[in-house]
Amino acid sequence: MTGFKSAAAFEAALRILPGPDEAARAAALARQSVLTKPAGSLGRLEEIAVFLAGWQARERPRLDRSRVAVFAGNHGVAARGVSAFPPAVTAQMVRNFREGGAAINALAGAAGLELMVVPLELGRPTADFTIGPAMSEDECLVAVNAGAAVVEPGLDLLVLGEMGIGNSTSAAALCAASFSGSATDWVGPGTGVHGIQLSAKLAVVEAGLALHAGADAPLERLRRLGGHEIAALAGAVVAARMARVPVLLDGFICCSAVAPLAVTVPGVVEHCLAGHVSAEPAHQRLLDQLGLEPLLALGMRLGEASGAAVAAGIVRAAVAAHDQMATFAEAGVSDG
Amino acid sequence: MTGFKSAAAFEAALRILPGPDEAARAAALARQSVLTKPAGSLGRLEEIAVFLAGWQARERPRLDRSRVAVFAGNHGVAARGVSAFPPAVTAQMVRNFREGGAAINALAGAAGLELMVVPLELGRPTADFTIGPAMSEDECLVAVNAGAAVVEPGLDLLVLGEMGIGNSTSAAALCAASFSGSATDWVGPGTGVHGIQLSAKLAVVEAGLALHAGADAPLERLRRLGGHEIAALAGAVVAARMARVPVLLDGFICCSAVAPLAVTVPGVVEHCLAGHVSAEPAHQRLLDQLGLEPLLALGMRLGEASGAAVAAGIVRAAVAAHDQMATFAEAGVSDG
Repeated sequence: MTGFKSAAAFEAALRILPGPDEAARAAALARQSVLTKPAGSLGRLEEIAVFLAGWQARERPRLDRSRVAVFAGNHGVAARGVSAFPPAVTAQMVRNFREGGAAINALAGAAGLELMVVPLELGRPTADFTIGPAMSEDECLVAVNAGAAVVEPGLDLLVLGEMGIGNSTSAAALCAASFSGSATDWVGPGTGVHGIQLSAKLAVVEAGLALHAGADAPLERLRRLGGHEIAALAGAVVAARMARVPVLLDGFICCSAVAPLAVTVPGVVEHCLAGHVSAEPAHQRLLDQLGLEPLLALGMRLGEASGAAVAAGIVRAAVAAHDQMATFAEAGVSDG
Repeated sequence: MTGFKSAAAFEAALRILPGPDEAARAAALARQSVLTKPAGSLGRLEEIAVFLAGWQARERPRLDRSRVAVFAGNHGVAARGVSAFPPAVTAQMVRNFREGGAAINALAGAAGLELMVVPLELGRPTADFTIGPAMSEDECLVAVNAGAAVVEPGLDLLVLGEMGIGNSTSAAALCAASFSGSATDWVGPGTGVHGIQLSAKLAVVEAGLALHAGADAPLERLRRLGGHEIAALAGAVVAARMARVPVLLDGFICCSAVAPLAVTVPGVVEHCLAGHVSAEPAHQRLLDQLGLEPLLALGMRLGEASGAAVAAGIVRAAVAAHDQMATFAEAGVSDG
């Protein structure tokens, strides 16, 4: 993936997003109707197989080249006491990812996903968005392109996630700015803040919204209220769409990266599945805004693509059933 | 598993069900609290790991020996037009299971489960329960013991499912007889019946309930309204409990097998997880009665242990995270 040359090139891409291969979709749908089961009885497994067939442009989708990309970034607002953990934890967790000790290592392994960890300027947090834009235009574009860079043509599935102390504050601000509702509708406990810390988080989001009101272009909103890892997620989602690579999204912060894009281009997530709905209260509200129905609801709230990686197991099950089942004719089973 | 010598022996077993290993549970819970993640942030994955630790009696549960058992039986009431498929499909699908062409073959493979298919007297359907008991006492005990026989000491997980044209009619009758509510609360489309066929199904269940009212001992209810495969499921669940083997239940019919037991012994499913809630409307009602919260809600309604096999992937993810993650101390990550 060569990336986007400018903010204008990124926003131009949003206006010419390709759709799925309709012939492959139709062929997959026809195949589902003759497999040895009552029609529709595999529920969402059938929908997932047909969805993947469309985006992979093959009647029988595969998951041979499936990648999970976890982007990490640091946030100026973390200094405002919005998280239960200190900012140093972002870099510590990146080391944990590399050494194989984090949840995502275990979960990616269990789901047969290649793990790519992408730390972004961890020594240079974003600016505090209550004072000015989180990133310069250049910084934001670099981050977007770091996201685009994880997309390779021919990937069968791209699973996305993030790590960044303070980033649920950024995510809440992006959602409140992009959709209706006040800061209270979008702010939640994140890693586990309550009481006075939660009030501080709310105040930070309200201040950010007031300062950056009126900035409604997708990339401008990402630049002002987002973060390096959040901009990277947006870049990865759009680059995947251009390459027709299907995407599996993780939790609240991961999904918040597409909020500023979805306001302008509601269909921007048509190539995306929502892996799960997290315990962060605003995530379901965000999924509703994006028109995505989560595959799982397990009360997870870790990030790191952990929920999406668990959901990748469901996607794998859907592909296996679609590919390996016999038809009524092949098996000599009477069709109802 | 040597099985139950008599109906009395089965019912006696229900009164002395063993619990989990509390020391192993406590050790697993303590381990979860020091792994590199905010406390509780893996949601139900944490609960599953602790649940398995208790029943397997080891701090770090394994899934090396995981088996899915699919029991198949035929039903006298199938002749009453209660299914969208002819009774011959039960045996045809058993052949399909053996030849590897069914959904459960693909899904068991994807989840790393050994598949055991257990056809029960397919040439000799149960009697029509609107006329008399579905099975004799001997037939029922033989079926219960066929279920118990799939349980081997040392199994890490037992995944249960069924196949049997007409068996959602039996399941509805068992639930209505065991719990409150009328036939309409428990009868649904099954493989896909509607209109006049659904009315016929309802009438069959009502006739069965009227004929067998008052038979409230667990095994007697199974014998009168159940089927070979349903009695086998009940036997497998109880034998697994006696061997402390954790169980993953499938859909409406699978869960209906424990309904007559749960009325007498509400804790009979403490060693069970509900793999999913199916699209069959009464399944959620049944899970509520059993006090089980499903892992998945994917609109599946196939049976064959298909939903439970998909859920086994979640159980595998839970075990992988619990086993492989580093602690805060090991990884040098600051604990919030």
